[in-house]
Amino acid sequence: MVLEIINKPEDLRKLTYSELEVLAGEIRNLLITVVMNNGGHLASNLGIVELTIALHRVFDFSVDSLIFDVGHQSYAHKIISGRKDLFSTLRQKNGISGFPNPNESVYDLFIAGHSSTSISSATGLALGKKIASDDSSTVAVVGDGSLGGGMCFEAMNHAGGVGANLLVVLNDNDMAISKTVGAFSKHLEEFRSKENTTKLRKDLKDALSKLPIIGESMDWFYEKLLGALKNHTGAAAVFEAMGFRYFGPFDGHSIEELEEELKSLSKLTGPRILHVLTEKGKGFTPACKDPESFHSSAPFTLDNEGGVIRLNCTCSDNTKSYSKVFSETLFDLAEKNDKVVAITAAMSGGTGMAKFAESFQNRFFDVGMAESHAIPFAAGLAKKGFVPVVAIYSTFLQRSYDQIFHDAALQEKLPVIFALDRAGLVGEDGPTHHGVFDIAYMRHLPNLVLMAPADADDMRLLFEFASKLSSPSAIRYPKGNVCSFMPEGYEHKPVALGKGEILKEGMDATVFAYGRMVAPVYAAASRLSAEHGIEIEVVNARFAKPLDDDLLIAAAGKGVIFTVEDHVLSGGFGSAVGEFLLDKTGGDIELRRIGIRDEFVLPASLSEQDEEYGLSEERLYQRFLDEFESLK
Amino acid sequence: MVLEIINKPEDLRKLTYSELEVLAGEIRNLLITVVMNNGGHLASNLGIVELTIALHRVFDFSVDSLIFDVGHQSYAHKIISGRKDLFSTLRQKNGISGFPNPNESVYDLFIAGHSSTSISSATGLALGKKIASDDSSTVAVVGDGSLGGGMCFEAMNHAGGVGANLLVVLNDNDMAISKTVGAFSKHLEEFRSKENTTKLRKDLKDALSKLPIIGESMDWFYEKLLGALKNHTGAAAVFEAMGFRYFGPFDGHSIEELEEELKSLSKLTGPRILHVLTEKGKGFTPACKDPESFHSSAPFTLDNEGGVIRLNCTCSDNTKSYSKVFSETLFDLAEKNDKVVAITAAMSGGTGMAKFAESFQNRFFDVGMAESHAIPFAAGLAKKGFVPVVAIYSTFLQRSYDQIFHDAALQEKLPVIFALDRAGLVGEDGPTHHGVFDIAYMRHLPNLVLMAPADADDMRLLFEFASKLSSPSAIRYPKGNVCSFMPEGYEHKPVALGKGEILKEGMDATVFAYGRMVAPVYAAASRLSAEHGIEIEVVNARFAKPLDDDLLIAAAGKGVIFTVEDHVLSGGFGSAVGEFLLDKTGGDIELRRIGIRDEFVLPASLSEQDEEYGLSEERLYQRFLDEFESLK
Repeated sequence: MVLEIINKPEDLRKLTYSELEVLAGEIRNLLITVVMNNGGHLASNLGIVELTIALHRVFDFSVDSLIFDVGHQSYAHKIISGRKDLFSTLRQKNGISGFPNPNESVYDLFIAGHSSTSISSATGLALGKKIASDDSSTVAVVGDGSLGGGMCFEAMNHAGGVGANLLVVLNDNDMAISKTVGAFSKHLEEFRSKENTTKLRKDLKDALSKLPIIGESMDWFYEKLLGALKNHTGAAAVFEAMGFRYFGPFDGHSIEELEEELKSLSKLTGPRILHVLTEKGKGFTPACKDPESFHSSAPFTLDNEGGVIRLNCTCSDNTKSYSKVFSETLFDLAEKNDKVVAITAAMSGGTGMAKFAESFQNRFFDVGMAESHAIPFAAGLAKKGFVPVVAIYSTFLQRSYDQIFHDAALQEKLPVIFALDRAGLVGEDGPTHHGVFDIAYMRHLPNLVLMAPADADDMRLLFEFASKLSSPSAIRYPKGNVCSFMPEGYEHKPVALGKGEILKEGMDATVFAYGRMVAPVYAAASRLSAEHGIEIEVVNARFAKPLDDDLLIAAAGKGVIFTVEDHVLSGGFGSAVGEFLLDKTGGDIELRRIGIRDEFVLPASLSEQDEEYGLSEERLYQRFLDEFESLK
Repeated sequence: MVLEIINKPEDLRKLTYSELEVLAGEIRNLLITVVMNNGGHLASNLGIVELTIALHRVFDFSVDSLIFDVGHQSYAHKIISGRKDLFSTLRQKNGISGFPNPNESVYDLFIAGHSSTSISSATGLALGKKIASDDSSTVAVVGDGSLGGGMCFEAMNHAGGVGANLLVVLNDNDMAISKTVGAFSKHLEEFRSKENTTKLRKDLKDALSKLPIIGESMDWFYEKLLGALKNHTGAAAVFEAMGFRYFGPFDGHSIEELEEELKSLSKLTGPRILHVLTEKGKGFTPACKDPESFHSSAPFTLDNEGGVIRLNCTCSDNTKSYSKVFSETLFDLAEKNDKVVAITAAMSGGTGMAKFAESFQNRFFDVGMAESHAIPFAAGLAKKGFVPVVAIYSTFLQRSYDQIFHDAALQEKLPVIFALDRAGLVGEDGPTHHGVFDIAYMRHLPNLVLMAPADADDMRLLFEFASKLSSPSAIRYPKGNVCSFMPEGYEHKPVALGKGEILKEGMDATVFAYGRMVAPVYAAASRLSAEHGIEIEVVNARFAKPLDDDLLIAAAGKGVIFTVEDHVLSGGFGSAVGEFLLDKTGGDIELRRIGIRDEFVLPASLSEQDEEYGLSEERLYQRFLDEFESLK
């Protein structure tokens, strides 16, 4: 094992290229083994092993600065930079994070899990170093998908304008989470065939040598032709226009070639971009074949023939994910109503839009990793009479906050539907990926309707309802599988604006549960009834905005009110209930808000997180019981 | 008066070019007269008169679609499209808005006041039209400053990638709110001299004619040279790389030339960009000389020599704006601490950073209209040991919500200071510009400290305090002038984390006032004391996060608590107080939250808005008095 002797990045420098190749294979094996067990980002990490090794051989990142955009491709970096023995704890409670984390290592500078931030923070570092006369290097590694995010453009425009001393490594694997989209990526594609570039260079040289023009004219022509060469595809032109010197493309799996280029680039200053071609999933056939599924993977195992068996279970009946129910719901809506269009931001597979995209190709829009753009784009479609369903993970929709305000809520009559997948706690991905702020960042915007379903049937009803609204609305639903918790044959009540649904009546207290929390609350209340004869009314709140005034006033008259949400308490559903009760009732209010404290929720399994924040059935049962014990 | 016969856009088509020139002058006079009286955006509107006329002559925007980016340059459009008689009510209560508004006219499609959204919504319209087989035109007019916003890049990348049928008119006045920054604008600059382009074109033709190469080689060379020509400056290359066909630059003040180009462009399809050069402030010397001051102007008058006298007064002592106090405070901080750096997003003048920029040139960063980028950029500087002060208007900082979460709050130990100018109600600019959501969009993010000063001295103390914190913090302060309301010689208490300052003691009730609201609350409470002997305790809350637990618990023990804020009630300061009281006290809570209802606040004067939402001294006095009357 070569990996055995690699305890810090400097150790890499002792190895020959053939040993480094062996090392790359060993790192890949470790990546695959740990991700099979713990789940995690696989395809992108497999693709970047050689690049990571080359970077650490050329630079000294205890002094120089290395920033991985999005950060989920930092596994090899973690293994190399002193964390190989901890790597088996990846994404586990008290283990190492699936994203860079300065608390783990001096080699990690920023926590990063959202895309397109690295060039900005690298520019800040570079300009800070300039003031401090620190001449160490600053390197940002960015995927081609992230580059479609407008912030990269903003950052390059700034860095290029001021000539920041910065190396951007463009890790081009022709694939962000889904297939990269947009005009820009088409240009990158032209670049991908290195032969083209080489041929063009040769052709130009040949042509030049045949030119009879001499003297100044020759120089002039030479300059022009070099310009043509440099600009012969758009991507390089864009970088040059941003003030960056462009180098590439290079083979991202040849450590030797990368090292040579990085060495010569490390001797230059100013804004530079190195274009590197890598293969997502490299070295693991299932991930190469289906990189999207292996972008972020649940734990899995392989059958005898190398087939993948997913080990993904968050609910005992393990039938269907919420994303799958969304997929079916969207498809049904679209079949019934030809005005329904669907928009995603490079998350077609993750959000379950693939089925819609296939059947309604001309009504499907993947805007790439450009969540901000997605909203005014949807507004434009709505203005033409369409009903856009914008499916973006709750945490990534944070990128669209101002646009939700400006281009949806403020426009009033535009029926844009925000489908917030991965809302609430998401488990192992941790604080960059939890969707625990969406109520708080949307509730204060006038005209918005906020909803969350209790189960699959409820989800269908809420989307159906949303598609008939004339105002914008948002429906949040969790990662993972649906729990069918209501008795067989139960049919949800029809949806009415701002009205909750009483699932279990009771006079001892009332619980308003929101979204995913309805199931454990219902179970806990049923147990309390069966075991202690305590009758708690369980309300499937359905709406965080508008609230169910009548039910709340009635509940306040009866006694203690609980609110339960997998969202932060600050500004969340319970906070809204509190505002209402304080304004509308006499001041004698017993409100118990259950949700997430004011802190970032660290990576752990979802059930560990539920336990930690009192959201598991058991903790809820105990909490309700305690309330009655304390009254005794 | 030619303007007299212009009642709808079609009327423009009856005029000769010389009549149109006269009309342009008349429109300018109307713009100047109304803005002198009402305040408003002047320089940009003066610059775009001819372009607006030409657009309305070539297209029929009752069928075709016209979107102005940011929207503050739509005055001439409003005058032409049936609103000339209402134009004198510009920005007044129940008058016409300073921004496009679909409630006013079918010629306005979207309310727009934030930048860089137009290409996105136009793309949505264009793709919607494609589905609907509607072949009308879609035109977005974007300033060169807006183009630096990443969303424009995202939108062009998308529109270009799918070949959306869309015309972008780039209104290039070399100047957004401040001077445009960034590599990209440098390239636009090269373009500005049309002579250069023409000369290059000619040179290339000459050179080609001298070439002895024939046949295929000739064609090949010709192609290459055309490529060079097309790409000879970066800006065109960028547009071409985005899949847009580039045309320009053209003189934006020649109606005839513009019309000719627009006509030929209207016959093409697909993504097109027309580059137009205009002069900001055109036709009004003071605005040409100082376009930044006339970007958004208070009412003004002219002295005998044509000098400008500003009529700007929101407080009787009319001494200093908050922006000016910030300017001095920032300068003082920077003098004492060479780690203090300052960042703005194209609002150097507006936020009062010019003084700092002059004296500490190497510590000042204007990132252009790129609020999102500004935050991770600041994080990079903070990581290198600097203390970045990021001054952005409250409403525009909404663009950075995700970055405040991801690149500031989540990183914990980065002392980034957000200076939120124009927080609270801003009067005439209306709903796109009020800064009434910032508490709600930041309070739920762990690690953030939220503050607001009561007056100028308090502001200095809070910034001083923030500069010593190890966590990120935000200080909000209003548009307009500081009210010095405390008795002469009063000295504010030293700042302590999460501690309010009691300005007036009292046993009858307690008011926690936040920021700008402290002054009218103090005045109202003083009157109640003098006139009725009612003693209300007045607390300058200073912090919305963390709250002053001790003071709140003490106040709850005494009786009714009021909170007063110029912020929406939903998720605001009072909501935070409500959460705390519900959690920590016994349930018997009398909390009266005074703030802005759940609706968008329409344009009106600030005092009219204060009156409307119960935030004026008089309304507060009455509200407090009513509380005691009702207890009788």
